[in-house]
Amino acid sequence: MEIKYAARMANLRASEIREILKVTENPNIISFAGGLPAPELFPVKEIKEINRLVLEESGSKALQYSTTEGYKPLRELIAKRMNNRLLTSFDADNILITHGSQQALDLSGKVFLDKNDVVLCESPTYLAAINSFKAYECTFAEVETDNEGMVMENLEKMLQTIPRIKFIYVIPDFQNPTGRTWSLEKRKALAKLAAKYKIIVIEDNPYGELRFEGETLPSIKSFDKEGYVLCTGTFSKIFCPGFRIAWIAGDKEIIHKYVLVKQGADLQCNTLAQMEISKYLELYNINEHINKIIDVYKRRRDLTIHIMEEKFPKAVSFTHPKGGLFIWVELPTNIDAREVLVQSIQRKVAFVPGGAFFPNGGKENTLRINFSNMPEERIVEGLTILGEILYESIK
Amino acid sequence: MEIKYAARMANLRASEIREILKVTENPNIISFAGGLPAPELFPVKEIKEINRLVLEESGSKALQYSTTEGYKPLRELIAKRMNNRLLTSFDADNILITHGSQQALDLSGKVFLDKNDVVLCESPTYLAAINSFKAYECTFAEVETDNEGMVMENLEKMLQTIPRIKFIYVIPDFQNPTGRTWSLEKRKALAKLAAKYKIIVIEDNPYGELRFEGETLPSIKSFDKEGYVLCTGTFSKIFCPGFRIAWIAGDKEIIHKYVLVKQGADLQCNTLAQMEISKYLELYNINEHINKIIDVYKRRRDLTIHIMEEKFPKAVSFTHPKGGLFIWVELPTNIDAREVLVQSIQRKVAFVPGGAFFPNGGKENTLRINFSNMPEERIVEGLTILGEILYESIK
Repeated sequence: MEIKYAARMANLRASEIREILKVTENPNIISFAGGLPAPELFPVKEIKEINRLVLEESGSKALQYSTTEGYKPLRELIAKRMNNRLLTSFDADNILITHGSQQALDLSGKVFLDKNDVVLCESPTYLAAINSFKAYECTFAEVETDNEGMVMENLEKMLQTIPRIKFIYVIPDFQNPTGRTWSLEKRKALAKLAAKYKIIVIEDNPYGELRFEGETLPSIKSFDKEGYVLCTGTFSKIFCPGFRIAWIAGDKEIIHKYVLVKQGADLQCNTLAQMEISKYLELYNINEHINKIIDVYKRRRDLTIHIMEEKFPKAVSFTHPKGGLFIWVELPTNIDAREVLVQSIQRKVAFVPGGAFFPNGGKENTLRINFSNMPEERIVEGLTILGEILYESIK
Repeated sequence: MEIKYAARMANLRASEIREILKVTENPNIISFAGGLPAPELFPVKEIKEINRLVLEESGSKALQYSTTEGYKPLRELIAKRMNNRLLTSFDADNILITHGSQQALDLSGKVFLDKNDVVLCESPTYLAAINSFKAYECTFAEVETDNEGMVMENLEKMLQTIPRIKFIYVIPDFQNPTGRTWSLEKRKALAKLAAKYKIIVIEDNPYGELRFEGETLPSIKSFDKEGYVLCTGTFSKIFCPGFRIAWIAGDKEIIHKYVLVKQGADLQCNTLAQMEISKYLELYNINEHINKIIDVYKRRRDLTIHIMEEKFPKAVSFTHPKGGLFIWVELPTNIDAREVLVQSIQRKVAFVPGGAFFPNGGKENTLRINFSNMPEERIVEGLTILGEILYESIK
């Protein structure tokens, strides 16, 4: 066989995380690798109940085709929740339901990116966003990022000098992979630069509701007077990921372009799943459920930090996130996290090496630790082992 | 605001069908427009039961992230059913679960198409496939198509003379929009040409199981010795479309490329929906369910043909499909079906004008009639009205 694939296929490789996740299907592995929620917290009983209700009340509608935009009552509920929490001013027509927020990223690539266009992103940034945009044959320019977000002077210089920038991609709340959160000032500044340079911002926000301490900050979108900022949200981390229900919100004209593109991509999201989540939001208090998740994750973060402080060599530094799922670890520059992983997998402990989170490569001395998925005793056991391996590597 | 979209956005417009479908949300409209299954046939009771079982037996797994490839037991069941029915020889690893077969088309575009590549298709062909491929900035060459499939001499000439052909897209069973089915000879011939010219064939097969009479024909794939043919299938028409569970099957190396692309597009399909369909296939006899659908659709097709023969002017011709959902109507060449639609909508009857099914335009004197979605009395009423309008237009 001789198959002529599209040129883009030469750039695509399997997501490193998803390949590592295959190893971690072995239940003996202690995995800090994925971004998996704690499955014991899924509201299984409630989902059984809402499924029964939706099918009894409107079974034939729930199983039929529906609109590309998404189930309107669900979009209304999402708009209301966002407006309350993030100080936005959306209604249902500002929102498109997507098949996971991964699809919101893919559609963003399709709506905006021509070959050789440039995406500006944090350094490091979300691995699967890189893969999703890469399919549209763009390039990436990484903006220097500190503990409070992008360094605005550098960002502005790049906006002035780099041609063909199509959008700026950021995760301002408990970023993947670093766990860092943008300051209020940087949020305002980014919205201002977007308007000044007429550049789209994709504000990706899958983790924002999982805040363990401190006050929720207004979204970047809330400072956007002109409509250049689009923001995503998802039920994957606050409800369950198996449903694949997320959304992108923004200016109605832009969202309409996303709708056109989604028509060709997959027509619409699962009707039943949308109606079920809508029913759940009506009948139950999702904020109470989120509080349960926060309690568990906060304990796991505290424990993770505590064990890392105790068991990791002093030459290793790491972030102290106030929410989300991830901690970012920096090893001495001469240590390659991929080599650490090889040893670590042998001892049945997994994590994701950090290099892949830099779209233009580099920083192989970094790694990402997820703290949401493992019960406490396995966190202790796994990090103790990882600490031993790090001591051996660094000595 | 000044938004710079990707160049592809200039080619995309709202799907004509989906725009018409918005009109048909009004329950007073008698709609022959969509490709909607009959909702009264959805197995609501059984779905309630399998949902309960899946959540009880493996709730936390069903609501969690899972692999991009799809739920393995479901892929195994699909492979087995295809092998039995279509004389293929697949196993689970030949199959990727997709979010509706629309996603299988979109991923095909992404895997194979560079800007200005050429897709060969039947004339006319499925509207949403055109939109899906167009997003990758390809062009279309329509192959002359008769009652038995593409005209092979024309196809071969095109394969010899047109540069940059990436794949041939066909719907050999009860085609959308014409309802026509390819002959055995043409199936064999297409597989042979694909191997000779080393060209991928996408065999789209959403309607094949809805055969009202005659024998099931082997798939084009069954004649493919080298791996150039990929085929799709879906649960939308034989179970329910709201779940959005379909698949693409083919050579393992090619399917692996689709997996890479799906990772970036949306990570994976709904875990729960996959496990539920798998459970349904285990516990119930889906073929019995399909037979119920066939009974109803056959009666509706018979009635539709009968009323069209009785109420339509003799200058109007139409296909007599042996299965599927659609009948293709040709009006005298001086009649524009879009103008007929305007009058028809005023009298609360909808259909889809045929022009949009020709990727390079033309044949505005055609239209598509769906016979699966409306109960019998509304079929009679709607087609009687349409007949009156056609008599007035043609006189």
